[in-house]
Parts: sequence; C-alpha cells; structure tokens
Amino acid sequence: MKKTVWTRRHLVDTHSLTVEEIFEVMAEAKALAGIKAPLLAGKVIANLFYENSTRTRTSFELAAKYLSADVVNLDIATSSAQKGESLLDTAETLAAMGVDALVIRHSSSGVCQQLASHFKNRLSIINAGDGMHEHPSQALLDLYTMLEKLQTVAGKKIVIVGDILHSRVARSNLHILTKLGAEVHLVGPPTLCIDPEPLEDALEDADVVMCLRLQMERQTSGLIPSLAEYREFYGIDRQKLELAKPNVLVMHPGPMNRGVEITSDVADDSLIRQQVRNGVIVRMAILKLLLQETGG
Amino acid sequence: MKKTVWTRRHLVDTHSLTVEEIFEVMAEAKALAGIKAPLLAGKVIANLFYENSTRTRTSFELAAKYLSADVVNLDIATSSAQKGESLLDTAETLAAMGVDALVIRHSSSGVCQQLASHFKNRLSIINAGDGMHEHPSQALLDLYTMLEKLQTVAGKKIVIVGDILHSRVARSNLHILTKLGAEVHLVGPPTLCIDPEPLEDALEDADVVMCLRLQMERQTSGLIPSLAEYREFYGIDRQKLELAKPNVLVMHPGPMNRGVEITSDVADDSLIRQQVRNGVIVRMAILKLLLQETGG
Amino acid sequence: MKKTVWTRRHLVDTHSLTVEEIFEVMAEAKALAGIKAPLLAGKVIANLFYENSTRTRTSFELAAKYLSADVVNLDIATSSAQKGESLLDTAETLAAMGVDALVIRHSSSGVCQQLASHFKNRLSIINAGDGMHEHPSQALLDLYTMLEKLQTVAGKKIVIVGDILHSRVARSNLHILTKLGAEVHLVGPPTLCIDPEPLEDALEDADVVMCLRLQMERQTSGLIPSLAEYREFYGIDRQKLELAKPNVLVMHPGPMNRGVEITSDVADDSLIRQQVRNGVIVRMAILKLLLQETGG
Repeated sequence: MKKTVWTRRHLVDTHSLTVEEIFEVMAEAKALAGIKAPLLAGKVIANLFYENSTRTRTSFELAAKYLSADVVNLDIATSSAQKGESLLDTAETLAAMGVDALVIRHSSSGVCQQLASHFKNRLSIINAGDGMHEHPSQALLDLYTMLEKLQTVAGKKIVIVGDILHSRVARSNLHILTKLGAEVHLVGPPTLCIDPEPLEDALEDADVVMCLRLQMERQTSGLIPSLAEYREFYGIDRQKLELAKPNVLVMHPGPMNRGVEITSDVADDSLIRQQVRNGVIVRMAILKLLLQETGG
Repeated sequence: MKKTVWTRRHLVDTHSLTVEEIFEVMAEAKALAGIKAPLLAGKVIANLFYENSTRTRTSFELAAKYLSADVVNLDIATSSAQKGESLLDTAETLAAMGVDALVIRHSSSGVCQQLASHFKNRLSIINAGDGMHEHPSQALLDLYTMLEKLQTVAGKKIVIVGDILHSRVARSNLHILTKLGAEVHLVGPPTLCIDPEPLEDALEDADVVMCLRLQMERQTSGLIPSLAEYREFYGIDRQKLELAKPNVLVMHPGPMNRGVEITSDVADDSLIRQQVRNGVIVRMAILKLLLQETGG
Repeated sequence: MKKTVWTRRHLVDTHSLTVEEIFEVMAEAKALAGIKAPLLAGKVIANLFYENSTRTRTSFELAAKYLSADVVNLDIATSSAQKGESLLDTAETLAAMGVDALVIRHSSSGVCQQLASHFKNRLSIINAGDGMHEHPSQALLDLYTMLEKLQTVAGKKIVIVGDILHSRVARSNLHILTKLGAEVHLVGPPTLCIDPEPLEDALEDADVVMCLRLQMERQTSGLIPSLAEYREFYGIDRQKLELAKPNVLVMHPGPMNRGVEITSDVADDSLIRQQVRNGVIVRMAILKLLLQETGG
C-alpha cells in the first residue's frame, strides 16, 4: 500500500535523493516519533567510526535499539592498535559476520559511495559523515525540525553561517533545501566560503539561521585570524538576529562552541534540543526504510 | 502498598538520604538478589564516564541489563577527540535522545547535584563518583555487605584507613554509617587525614576495617614519603588485625593494590568479592527505585 | 541423547582437545549456521581484551548476541587509566558480578590455563589468543572452513607460511590438524621458523596454503631484512601457487597486509570471507557447548 517510493539500500548523500524520497523519510519519521517497536528485531547494525563522534554514534545506536536491532560499536578512532586493514576489508569482514547495515564516519570524502557501489544489495551503507562531502542524516533531521515549525521550507529564507567550505552539514542541507524550493544563503569568512554574501544582507528577513560549528583547528591553520574576530563578524547573537524575521529559527548541528559561533543566550533559545531529539527519530526512519523487509 | 518512602528522581549523595530511604534501598536490593527480570524494559541508561572506571561502569551496565534496560556507554575519558562540549550540553543532548538515567563519573565535586537541580523530573542523575565529593552507590553496597554479616551497624566500630582527605568513598560511607549509629573512625597519614587517630587505637576491638585504595600518584605528589612507609604504618596485615575483634570484617572498594594498603593474604580473606557481587544488586535496586513507574 | 562427549567448562587450547571433541564443535557449528536463537538468554559474556582486536572481539560479541546472551566489553588495551589490577582480580570481579564466560585476549602465554585452573566450574574461560601460545577458536574455524571444501583433512597437505615462531594461530592449527591426520608443513624465514622446509618443496601439490599475518614490528626488530624480501621469498602469489594443487585453498586469519604476505589478487580469491563468516558460527558453537545447561 504505502512504501511505493523507497527502493534504496544505501543512504550516502542527499544530492541524489528525490523530493518524494525526502518526504517518505519525513513521513516515516513522523510515524515513529515517540515509539519503540521491534520492527528490526534480528537485524544487526555496526557503527564503524573512523572519526570520533559520541553524539552521532549514540544517536544511531539508540535509533537502532528503539527498533530492537542489535548494535556493535567499532570505534576505530580510539582503538590504540589500528592494524592498518583497509576500510573495504573491514567492511567485508563485518558483512561476512552477518551485519545488515554499516553506519560509517570517515575522514575521506566519497568512501560511502564507493562502499555502496561495491556492496550493492549485500548490506546497507549509511553515511554518518564522510570528509567534506555529505552528512545526509543530519540534513534530514534538520529538515524535519524546520517542517515541525514552518510546515514548508519552500520560499523560506535559510541562512547557513560558518565554515561552508569544509562543512558536510552545509553541503547536505544545501542539496535538500534547494530541491524543496528554499532560498539558501551561505555566509562565512572569505577563507571559508566562496563568494560570501554580507551577513547583514543574508540575515535580513531570514526564516532560519543555521550556525555551523567552528572547528577550532581552523584558527591555528591560519584560516581565521582569531576567535574574537570570528565571533564579532560571524557569531550569531541577539543583535544580529534583529535583522531576521521576529520568529527566526536558530539551529546548530552540535556540539556547540558557546560564545564563538553562537552566544549562550541564543543557544538556549535555539532548536538544538529538538534537532537532537529528531535526530533519533529520523535515524529510526532511515534504518527502517533501508532494512525492513517488505512483505511480498 | 510498599513504596511509601522513596520519591527521589536522583541519587547524588548519601548526605541527604534519610534512614528510611537507606533501608528502602537495602530492602529492594535484598528482593532483587539473584534475580533477572524485565522491570526496566524500554528504559535507557547512559553511562557517562569522564574518568575511566571499567569496574563501576560494568557494574551499572550489568545491573541495568539484568533488569532489561538498554544501555549506552559514553567513555569520554578514552575518546581521543573530546570536542569540549560542556557536561550540561552533553547531558541535555542525551536527555533529548530519550535517555531515562545518566550514570555519571566526573572529576569535579558537585556536578551531579548541579545536573539534578537542572533536570528536576526530566531524567534521573546517578552519581557514580564526583571528584572528592561522594560515591553513594559504593557506600550503599558497603552497607548491604556489612548488614549481611552484622545484621546492624548501630554501635559497631568501623575503621576507615587511608587517604581520607581525597576519598569520596570515605565521605559517602561516613554519612551513611553515622546516620545508622555506627562509631566511625578515620585513620591515615597526617597529610591525607585531618586529625587522625593512631591506627592502633582505632583498630582495637574494631568490627569492620575498610581499606581505601592508595592512589599511586599521591607518592609523586609528595603526600606520602614512600610506598614502603605507607605499607608499614597503614597497610592492613594480619598482625595489625590482631588488635581488632576476632571476626573483624575487612573491606576494600577495589581495585586493590595488593601489598600496599592491604596484604595479599588479608585481601583473600576480605569481603571484596561480596562487595562486588552486592554492587550489582544494590545498583539494580537504585535503578528500580529511580526509574520504575509506580502504578497510580 | 547427543552431547555425550563435551564436558569442558573452558576452551583454553586445541592441544588438549580430543578428536571427538573437535568433531562435536564442528557438528554444533553446522547445526547453528545461519540461525539466531535464544539458546543463551540470561547468560552474560564478558570480552576482556588486553590486546586490541576489533575483529575477534566483534566476532565473539555477535556470536553471543545471535544466541541472545548479554555482552559486556572491557577493552583494557584502550582504557587510558589502567589501574594496575591483576588479571586474576579483574576476572574475580567479573565473576562476582555474575558473568558466565570470560573471553580473554592477553599478551602472556598461558594465562587462560591459569585462570581455568583457578575458576574450575565457577565460570567459563575462553582463550581468544594468549601471547605466543594458542588461539583455539581461530583454529577451529579454520578447520570448519577446510571441511566445508575438502570434507576431510586426513592425508591433506597443509602449508602454513610466515612467522611460525611467534604465531598462536599456527600453533593451534598444528595441534588440530595433526590430530586429524593432516600432513602439516611449516615454512618461514629461518629467524621466524625452526628448521624450515624450502617453500617450493612445501607448496608442491599442497591442498591448503595458510598465510600468516606478518607483524610489521618484526622488521624493525631485525627479524626480517625488509618487507620487499619477505614478499619475494614468502609472499603468496599466483606464480608460487602454481606449484600447489590446481584447486588449492588459500586461507588467512586476517587482518591481511595485502601486497606483503599475500598478493591482492590471491587475497580476493582466498577463503578469508568464509573464515570470517564461519568464525561467528564456530564461536556460537563454542559458547553453546560451554554454557548451555544440559537437561538433567
């Protein structure tokens, strides 16, 4: 009856998602909100994290457990003795052990697409952030959070502020939001954003302001002059927000540097908690769509 | 019918526990001894450890699993890339993900009380050791172990030996034991214990001797002259125990430095295994009391 | 009816296994292949790894979960603050917490036998690799994999190539294979193998070639002159395999150094994936035999 659109085995990007697929994730997520059900009992999900991210790993782990799947965590980033096996060999090893889905975070852009092409229907690859490429579940949870508040993003003015150049979060959001007819503005220091609009222009009458996390190592690498200057020109505070619509939504993918890219009072009024809550829900929807057998 | 006393959502200390509450934990623990039951099915417990403690983390993890709760482990101490998010933001993130209880170990005294005040009824905070403040589940399991052997601690002479000044175990035990009418003696080197009694006086006719673990870094920090001297003056051995009652109970919170604060033969005759076994039982009781919905 | 042979509580080596016991593991594994069943519901398995091995730990973890056992992981190798407790005290602590089996990897040869002698019937010790001594579950899964292809190993020529001297995998395989009547040949550089046969002689008409992983630190320790020389003389490639039987089976315990002990094309045609898949199955059989209560 339902499930007419979704046929994918992998979620590696938002770039290739159709509008129908995006809305199917939204609908599944809405149906799963607040529910725990053994829809994926007997399935095994492996969290294969080459970069440390307690937050994203825990979100996927809980999403899987709320659907009664088994979870194994492989924190390659923290294992002292990395034996230098290739990602492909490690993934094949997990496939041979009977794992149904690999949730992967890796520093190299594009590795999830390579694995998806390699494995085809043998298991599901879920991109939990690959280099500077994409972070699709983050963008889907961001969309879910915006839709809760705005009903639609079509025609809305959405400003993404920060290190656009290196941000997989910005890239995945940009793909989804433009597909859905939003007016996306990208703003940041000239070293971190190509051809940036002035922040004041972008913020004018904005519906949503999405702050990106500033990677602290950008400073030591010379890409920003100082945290103080970054905060002055790009940190989101109450005063800058006065340019936006009165009910402007402020979002942040977390973890936040309070007092750098966002002031603490703005953070407290932001949607960051709703994003985290919706993250679990949207990931439950992703796992269900990718893994649940369709009856016939 | 039962559950008339317990109304707390958090366990942050023993200082504020009433005698009735302490006995309710004891009664619940006794009822749960040796049992596995799905009393907390559907609940989620997060172990949030900023200091490494395989022993305490595993004890809480097993206690939760024996009651069919889901567990996620966040070993912040061992994660290579700590992104500098505040404890409060991390705790709020886990709350947003649907976690029902946070078991927290942290180096800062008082953080669990702060979190409990912040979260109120939104989730349960369980202190698994905060700085030099408290370690309430340890003191409750110590009490359970003593009651198994002595029926009551009222009027008993209980000697705690070691680094009293820095010990959250000593502090939590002291609160409970004095509430219950025990006669508690604190003994240690003058640099690690305020106004210490001579060990010989304390040990005379003692019912219980509780050895604290010597933190090895105390030596390099100049607080004790040498391990050999510590062992000679404060290490518990058979000869010193001759001053105590014939059936004196020897306890240790673990992990032990055999041959330092306790000789190996005394360790083998001590109650340390019973303490560990009772630790799981008492933590089951704590989780049940804090998390189980009361029927109406 | 069945279970007439197996009475062990521990699996510490293959040296002491009888032929009947080996075949009982094979039969159990065959019966469990592809199955998930709650045969060990309520049992608790602790993975106690003093050396890092994501692969073996995950294999045991999944084997346990496929049988509905609870699993706790203690990655001592990666915990930043190892408090110096002895292995015996740590094992006793886990026993007191109610753990039914300890899966142990440790750098010291013989520790699993010591623990088994100590614990007797109180819990099960499973050796997941102890120093240069044994790695019995690896040898049993290797046997299972050979039997799938060859039906029997009796009379088969099996060549093990590499660092024989330091290899617990070689040692455990040697015991099993010779018990079952195989003709085992051990080959490697003279610094890593006592009285080695020339590789060409060994490979002639071989039924199975098992490559061992080259520990990269052997080079810096002066035991091999260079990786290039090792590859030339002992690396298994198509050309060397022409000496063997046409359908020769190539095996590797993983993780592989592609281009060192095995060329990448030979690796792709090897049985390594089957070995990994069978690893989970054989470990399920081991856990079931050691832990399942027999009815009466």
